[in-house]
Amino acid sequence: MIQGLAEEQRLSGAIVQGGLVWLAGRVADDDSPDTGGQTADVLRQVDALLEQAGTHKRRPLSVTAVLADVRDAPAVNRPWDGSPDPATKPARTTVEAALVAPSWPVGITGVAALDGPGARQT
Amino acid sequence: MIQGLAEEQRLSGAIVQGGLVWLAGRVADDDSPDTGGQTADVLRQVDALLEQAGTHKRRPLSVTAVLADVRDAPAVNRPWDGSPDPATKPARTTVEAALVAPSWPVGITGVAALDGPGARQT
Amino acid sequence: MIQGLAEEQRLSGAIVQGGLVWLAGRVADDDSPDTGGQTADVLRQVDALLEQAGTHKRRPLSVTAVLADVRDAPAVNRPWDGSPDPATKPARTTVEAALVAPSWPVGITGVAALDGPGARQT
Repeated sequence: MIQGLAEEQRLSGAIVQGGLVWLAGRVADDDSPDTGGQTADVLRQVDALLEQAGTHKRRPLSVTAVLADVRDAPAVNRPWDGSPDPATKPARTTVEAALVAPSWPVGITGVAALDGPGARQT
Repeated sequence: MIQGLAEEQRLSGAIVQGGLVWLAGRVADDDSPDTGGQTADVLRQVDALLEQAGTHKRRPLSVTAVLADVRDAPAVNRPWDGSPDPATKPARTTVEAALVAPSWPVGITGVAALDGPGARQT
Repeated sequence: MIQGLAEEQRLSGAIVQGGLVWLAGRVADDDSPDTGGQTADVLRQVDALLEQAGTHKRRPLSVTAVLADVRDAPAVNRPWDGSPDPATKPARTTVEAALVAPSWPVGITGVAALDGPGARQT
């Protein structure tokens, strides 16, 4: 079964299939804040999508952060580091690339696992 | 089992493993058309690879569109929107980055699911 | 179960879950060599992470190579082509994007499968 969440005209905000949640690239709903504020906006969207997908806590596997200017990495890391569950550190890739509109300094996409038996081993 | 499809010198056009199909980055076979024409070319390649992988219809999970110039997004969306099965909307990420040759304005990669029991829930 | 390997402050070097190994974006530990040397450094890291994850040989599914200058593609391909197991050709995507520091010309990320029953079918 393939389940689409938060469907828009030509994409789904997330796809749930086979125990994995595939996120679309998320950018801030409100593009007026600075990079840190937009990152927090994006992380809230990610959390909401994962909750909608049925994961009871954040279980990210792989995350890609796309920064329009890679010198913004510290501004992205501040809200990232303050995320609710610091124990779940995904495999992260950070690259510099323009997003679809210049008002977005950061976009985040990734893959998470649905909750399952057993807990994270650290 | 890991199955490689459309193998080239140093990569496979697609890898089938564990119910998933991993696509290599596809660019147009013919780089003479404009962005819309090359996008249609790429989407035809994606469809052919998924069919070769054994999916009877398109079951994309996650798609990344790489545009050399992000202002080309509308030109990419036109053939995308005309794809055969509008019900299957993957999680899509769009970024601006140069492809390996400047004659390619667009590249697409992604992950799809093999056909399985149950239908897409929308 | 989600298992994090090579954990750093805010990311895991790799995540093992559900038979898959998700790599973080790897860049050279030593950024003094040229692109070919740094690529070999990155490929050694990938091999070490996959071995730590429990794969007895390289079973890459999907690899993304990010090049700060796409004209470096031949320099990346030389160590790539010399990798130990030429039979395993993942689905590869190559794009041009800056990495977090300008001293890194190349970054590699990807997904691999844990060893399982059956061998690669080519």
